[in-house]
Amino acid sequence: MNIETYIHQFIDPDYKFGNLPFEIKEKTIRKNEVISDYNVIEQNMYFLQSGIVQVSIEANAETKILDFFFPGSFFCSYTSSLTQKPSDVQLLAISDCQVQIFKIIDLQNAYSYSLLANKLGRIETEKLYLKKVKREKDFLTKSAEERYVDILNDNPAFIDLIPVNKIAKYLGIQPESLSRIRKQK
Amino acid sequence: MNIETYIHQFIDPDYKFGNLPFEIKEKTIRKNEVISDYNVIEQNMYFLQSGIVQVSIEANAETKILDFFFPGSFFCSYTSSLTQKPSDVQLLAISDCQVQIFKIIDLQNAYSYSLLANKLGRIETEKLYLKKVKREKDFLTKSAEERYVDILNDNPAFIDLIPVNKIAKYLGIQPESLSRIRKQK
Repeated sequence: MNIETYIHQFIDPDYKFGNLPFEIKEKTIRKNEVISDYNVIEQNMYFLQSGIVQVSIEANAETKILDFFFPGSFFCSYTSSLTQKPSDVQLLAISDCQVQIFKIIDLQNAYSYSLLANKLGRIETEKLYLKKVKREKDFLTKSAEERYVDILNDNPAFIDLIPVNKIAKYLGIQPESLSRIRKQK
Repeated sequence: MNIETYIHQFIDPDYKFGNLPFEIKEKTIRKNEVISDYNVIEQNMYFLQSGIVQVSIEANAETKILDFFFPGSFFCSYTSSLTQKPSDVQLLAISDCQVQIFKIIDLQNAYSYSLLANKLGRIETEKLYLKKVKREKDFLTKSAEERYVDILNDNPAFIDLIPVNKIAKYLGIQPESLSRIRKQK
């Protein structure tokens, strides 16, 4: 899937191909490449066509994983892109990735006049919001085991591609605890 | 402040008064009134003109506070309004509140054609997203004491109006721990 088929399918069924209000480029990103680093102001928005991306933060000299992105998603250091302040997260390709890229400044310009750009920005931000709220509520109401089962159910095609220690860092538990949970499944 | 002055000031400086793409009503809500309850599908969006609203969730037979809203903010059971599924949060007026209200269905209709509605929805969702991400990162990287100081600094005009036990529930600590922190300030 590419940005235009995504927009046609999920944002506006009347979208006419070739009418994006910003210019896009294609890029291949290698496994373990940093896509957007700590302390850098985010300049780009990405659409993930293949591969998996992790979002991490440094907390008390430890790396915590806040999020994973799977194919068919927009991603970037979103807080930094909105505030235009240096990012406190890092985006890392945890497998080879194929992406489409456009510039945040082009998106911001399009927001001033384009109904399509605003629909896209609104709907994608709603998705990111729902994902964050779900994560907050799940930490308050579910055990690590229940949250692990959720990940398995939500992303059956991709979960085997994420190293176990990264899943543990996302769940906020020790790798040994996750091994115990996995053995019981 | 009302919705139209807010839109003129923060969403679109070219906004001409009297051109909202949805109908609004005014309402007074009494202290301790439930605005939007658990297990109900959210039908309304609110703009808070005065007063304070809390968002709570039931977790392991305990009430946790996820958020407070202060004057000059849009609020509702936002996850429920987006998914149109029964809400797992409750909105409660913790002081007398004056609000403006419009219907989610009117907003959704306006999203199909109105640049202004989409700008408003996008920008307000960006704000909610930034607030959620900040809360997630703060839980990972800051002590309860640092998070309490943040609340004081962010909302100096309102924080005295929130009962201490509610602030403790928002910080995820025992009231006694918060009392200790407050005595040191």
